[in-house]
Amino acid sequence: MDRYPSSLLEKAVSEFAKLPGIGRKTALRLVLFMLKRSDSEVDAFSDAISHVKKDIKYCKICHNISDTDICPICADGHRDGQVVCVVENIQDVMAIENTQQFHGLYHVLGGVISPMDGIGPNELEIESLVSRVAEGNIKEVILALSSTMEGDTTSFYISRKLASFNVRMSVIARGISVGNELEYTDEVTLGRSILNRTPLQK
Amino acid sequence: MDRYPSSLLEKAVSEFAKLPGIGRKTALRLVLFMLKRSDSEVDAFSDAISHVKKDIKYCKICHNISDTDICPICADGHRDGQVVCVVENIQDVMAIENTQQFHGLYHVLGGVISPMDGIGPNELEIESLVSRVAEGNIKEVILALSSTMEGDTTSFYISRKLASFNVRMSVIARGISVGNELEYTDEVTLGRSILNRTPLQK
Repeated sequence: MDRYPSSLLEKAVSEFAKLPGIGRKTALRLVLFMLKRSDSEVDAFSDAISHVKKDIKYCKICHNISDTDICPICADGHRDGQVVCVVENIQDVMAIENTQQFHGLYHVLGGVISPMDGIGPNELEIESLVSRVAEGNIKEVILALSSTMEGDTTSFYISRKLASFNVRMSVIARGISVGNELEYTDEVTLGRSILNRTPLQK
Repeated sequence: MDRYPSSLLEKAVSEFAKLPGIGRKTALRLVLFMLKRSDSEVDAFSDAISHVKKDIKYCKICHNISDTDICPICADGHRDGQVVCVVENIQDVMAIENTQQFHGLYHVLGGVISPMDGIGPNELEIESLVSRVAEGNIKEVILALSSTMEGDTTSFYISRKLASFNVRMSVIARGISVGNELEYTDEVTLGRSILNRTPLQK
């Protein structure tokens, strides 16, 4: 057990060490870095964290993080409101936005079904997705969840929930990554990439 | 460039990304983790950081971090006030304390001489070390600086500064690490370990 020369220091280190992926050595380095910064820089840091926690909103439509009740994507009239892409979290929204290939709306579940972690369908924004689809404006739901057992389970659950609605369902393509060599791709992925082959554009 | 759905989120991510070793992706993960925590947990985090910055003191004797004007080590009457170990920063104090092999006092320089980074002798607590030695109570000064060019330069500078005083000077041993195999030790270290060999205890 490390002995800290100061209880204030130890407290700050403990708080940093609660963050994911940050151990006590890194935490100490971060706190000592903080001590070297100016008062105003440290205030800016702790204010930014307090503010984001207190004032952040979640979009009432898609549950993405937002400064306003309706997020900029849902509020954007130029986007296609008939297509909704279902994702796990806001990092996934940002990742898809960065591709610039999708111009519809999103629905952020807030996780995937994972009984091991105590996350059932009721912990996720699935009912609100069903309500959105029930309104009748949505023509296609794209499931863009992780290619894991939990992701697949959630995709299956959602597809059953939406089965009674007149809405097209699709799943993002599984296949070999762009830039990857065939021989190093695992066999399940390779098998999927053959099954889901796409016709060549002539 | 990532597009954040919220300016509050972007601000918090930018603040986290200013910390050493934390990129924007990690920063986003940390902020989203913060959002999942309770209000009181987030307050505890930002309070701990504000407090450590505002209320931390530096020991008036050894310049170690402390809650009080004199740090617990300097205030401890059981420690040997005749031996002072000169270190670069407080992590080094903690590392040496963890060995439980040293029972003297410390002197924290706050860095090493590094002209490339604009750090000269005047930026470090060298004058205050000279003053401590000039008081006449110190019998031995142990230089425990990093085994780098900057560390060696600083050791040399300090040894010259203290040359006129009647004080024993020593440098911590350089040699092969405990548990390391000889054949994988670099030749400079191995050479030093032979030069500085210690007599076997019979």
